[in-house]
Amino acid sequence: VDEADRRDIASLFRYAENSVGAIMTTDYAWLPINLTTGQAIERLRAQAPDRETIYYVYVLDEATRRMLGILSLRALVMSEPGTPIRDVMLKRDPITLRASDDREKAATALIKYDLLALPVLDDDGRLVGIVTHDDIVDVITQEATEDIQRAGGMEALDRPYLEVGFWEMMKKRGGWLSILFLGEMLTATAMTYFQGEIEKAVVLAMFVPLIISSGGNSGSQASTLVIRSLALIELRLRDWWRVLGRELKSGLALGTWLGLIGFLRVAIWHYTGLYDYGEHHFLVGLTVFLALIGVVTLGSVSGSMLPFILRRIGFDPATSSAPFVATLVDVSGLVIYFTVAVLILTGRVL
Amino acid sequence: VDEADRRDIASLFRYAENSVGAIMTTDYAWLPINLTTGQAIERLRAQAPDRETIYYVYVLDEATRRMLGILSLRALVMSEPGTPIRDVMLKRDPITLRASDDREKAATALIKYDLLALPVLDDDGRLVGIVTHDDIVDVITQEATEDIQRAGGMEALDRPYLEVGFWEMMKKRGGWLSILFLGEMLTATAMTYFQGEIEKAVVLAMFVPLIISSGGNSGSQASTLVIRSLALIELRLRDWWRVLGRELKSGLALGTWLGLIGFLRVAIWHYTGLYDYGEHHFLVGLTVFLALIGVVTLGSVSGSMLPFILRRIGFDPATSSAPFVATLVDVSGLVIYFTVAVLILTGRVL
Repeated sequence: VDEADRRDIASLFRYAENSVGAIMTTDYAWLPINLTTGQAIERLRAQAPDRETIYYVYVLDEATRRMLGILSLRALVMSEPGTPIRDVMLKRDPITLRASDDREKAATALIKYDLLALPVLDDDGRLVGIVTHDDIVDVITQEATEDIQRAGGMEALDRPYLEVGFWEMMKKRGGWLSILFLGEMLTATAMTYFQGEIEKAVVLAMFVPLIISSGGNSGSQASTLVIRSLALIELRLRDWWRVLGRELKSGLALGTWLGLIGFLRVAIWHYTGLYDYGEHHFLVGLTVFLALIGVVTLGSVSGSMLPFILRRIGFDPATSSAPFVATLVDVSGLVIYFTVAVLILTGRVL
Repeated sequence: VDEADRRDIASLFRYAENSVGAIMTTDYAWLPINLTTGQAIERLRAQAPDRETIYYVYVLDEATRRMLGILSLRALVMSEPGTPIRDVMLKRDPITLRASDDREKAATALIKYDLLALPVLDDDGRLVGIVTHDDIVDVITQEATEDIQRAGGMEALDRPYLEVGFWEMMKKRGGWLSILFLGEMLTATAMTYFQGEIEKAVVLAMFVPLIISSGGNSGSQASTLVIRSLALIELRLRDWWRVLGRELKSGLALGTWLGLIGFLRVAIWHYTGLYDYGEHHFLVGLTVFLALIGVVTLGSVSGSMLPFILRRIGFDPATSSAPFVATLVDVSGLVIYFTVAVLILTGRVL
């Protein structure tokens, strides 16, 4: 059965796109149980030229096709020719799949146990196909590509860049761009709310991109880390509390660091005469400093918690892509920044 | 040789961290050339229990350890017992590696040719080790993790999230955050340059985050797509021209779409009385419309070209992460936006 036939078979059975059924092959080597290893090798010689792999051979009940065990070619070759294969085959708890399983399950099992192939059984324990290591490697690569593309703030393409048609590309990118744009519109609303402050101290507008992008960047880091760790099962849902603690600490430290640079920016520009921040330049610098601590901490915390929340309510954590987190943090970052400004500058600049 | 010993051997020879040498095993099965397949199987029975894999057996010159061919266990089992192994082994153009090769080369070759293991030779063609499929699967997963983390705007962690110490995490994240912050400082400079316009029409400041973030988002999409395609060798350096054409077209289409939404935002808010954009509200809407076309096109084009430029001058394309592109586009996006505003609004609002 070649690649094209295999696809036909898969589509015939209408296995879902990301299911084990869609990547399995029916082109496995099998043997009945009442053989010696010597006889088994003879039988394999006859059928092997047509089989995708003979490194794992499946021992089936001839009448029902129920799987009784797995025989590795290594074990077969290593044993004395007269040994019954039932003494050499692996019987207990073999890792098996269902055709309806998610293909990621196959990938995880194959990686964890360093296997060359996994058997796919039906509800009655009959062998319906096998998933081989080379197909799993393709799955791992494709899944990583999808994760990376979603992290970039778009729907995953299912084909190479140059093979995707123009309008399909527009759909995959335009959908998310529109959602992000609608979300980002709230920044205009937030700024309208603080229009009076901007009119009195236009200097405040100068720092808007600098401050909100810092929150977006720290949020992008945090969400990327957590999404990947959840995908690799290095983090589980119950770890959210530990992550929150770490990200709160990280956000405060990173925010203080950027805040110091921001404060120095104001001081250096002021004292070298590059820009006149007026008599209250210290307070302007302080506003930038405190706003950055708040915004970067908000970015780290919301970027790290959003994937947990999405997973908890049954969505894909990867939806909280870097651009998505950045949009959320842009809006709330503006509110933090102008609130700090009002608290510190009212009565002086404002 | 178990896992721990293998690491020792690797460190003994001081192979670079991401080299083939660091993941290879010296624990391969080998045979001299003057054997029949039957004799070969007998010899394998003796040495196989200690070998990591016997599915590929390496045929070596006994005196020099030069590799003469590769024998698959499948071919060995399939052939008649009296056949000389030199007639069964694979001699011509086998894919071989050097210990100093990047481990990604091993991954690419193994995926492309669906192999179980690859031989590692020294300069004289002597077999120094093999790289097996299970180690390659780990490499693929790790490389994807590194790419995803760099796409999130940080240095790749080399261990799971919860195992990385606080200060190490600060270093990996703080470095890039600082670079992005310093770059983003140019937005404050750019806005200072247009301070006069903002003072005259504070409404211009309201749309700053909306407009520049749209450029960042489209740039993030484009850079993510191109970086991943370069990594998978779906795109090569010479394809830059085709990508430029596509991204120019995509950017114009997506920018026009977002521009229309932006224009509608101004019109709807104005006519429903949510915000009074004054008598020149049409021109304000037009400014937003045209600026979005310019900024989104700039984002798509620069996001897609930057990875090519970085690769061309010898840097890792992954350096042009989404946050890095967003920072570049924020600065130039501001210039585009205010230039459009000056062109359209001077004499009316300005």
